[in-house]
Amino acid sequence: MNIKRTGGRKTGQHPDHSSVKLLSSMEAAISVLVSQFKAFAGKDGSSDTLSRDEFQSLVVSQLPNLVKNASDPAAIDKLMGSLDENSDGELTFPEFWQLIGALASQQGGFSK
Amino acid sequence: MNIKRTGGRKTGQHPDHSSVKLLSSMEAAISVLVSQFKAFAGKDGSSDTLSRDEFQSLVVSQLPNLVKNASDPAAIDKLMGSLDENSDGELTFPEFWQLIGALASQQGGFSK
Repeated sequence: MNIKRTGGRKTGQHPDHSSVKLLSSMEAAISVLVSQFKAFAGKDGSSDTLSRDEFQSLVVSQLPNLVKNASDPAAIDKLMGSLDENSDGELTFPEFWQLIGALASQQGGFSK
Repeated sequence: MNIKRTGGRKTGQHPDHSSVKLLSSMEAAISVLVSQFKAFAGKDGSSDTLSRDEFQSLVVSQLPNLVKNASDPAAIDKLMGSLDENSDGELTFPEFWQLIGALASQQGGFSK
C-alpha cells in the first residue's frame, strides 16, 4: 500500500523547520483515534495494546453514545471477546479498529 | 456486537428535545470520517460507494499528508485495486475503512 512514512518524526525535526503540516479534517480525525487509543493503552504495561480494564475505561469515556451498556462489565467482556481474535486478553490496534469500523458503519447507515 | 442504534435519528426528534448529545473526541472523529466519506461518495451515482474519481478527489483533498502520489492516476488505480475486494470499480465503506485503518496503524507506529 502506497503510504507515506510520516511515522514518529516530530515536525520540529524537519530540516527546514517551516513546514508545519496542515492536516485535513480526515487526517486530524485519524490522529485523534490513534492518540486516544495510545492514551488508554499506555495506562499499564504495553502501550501498544488495550488490557480489558483499559478497554472498558476507553469505551466508558470515549464511546458513551455509540456503545450500549458501556459500564456493564459483562457487556464489555462480551464486546472484547468479539474483538480479541487471538484471545490473549489484550486488544491490538487492528483488533480495536474493527470496533471503530463497525461503529462508523452503523453511524453511516452502511451496515443494513 | 453491542452497538447503540443511533442511525439517522436527528437530535431534534428526541422526545424530550433537551438531550443535545455531547460527543467525545473519538465519537466526533468517527463522525468526521463518516461524513467526509459520504460527502465524496455522494458526488455521482450511489452515495454509499466511492467511484474511482470520487476516491481520487477524496485522497487528494483529505489524505495529502498520508498517501504518497495522491494526484498520480496510476498510484490511485493501484491503491484502489488493493482495496476493491470485489473489483466492481466502487469502494464500499468497509473497503474504504481498510485504507483508513492502514493509515492509522502507520501513523501510530503499529504496523512494524
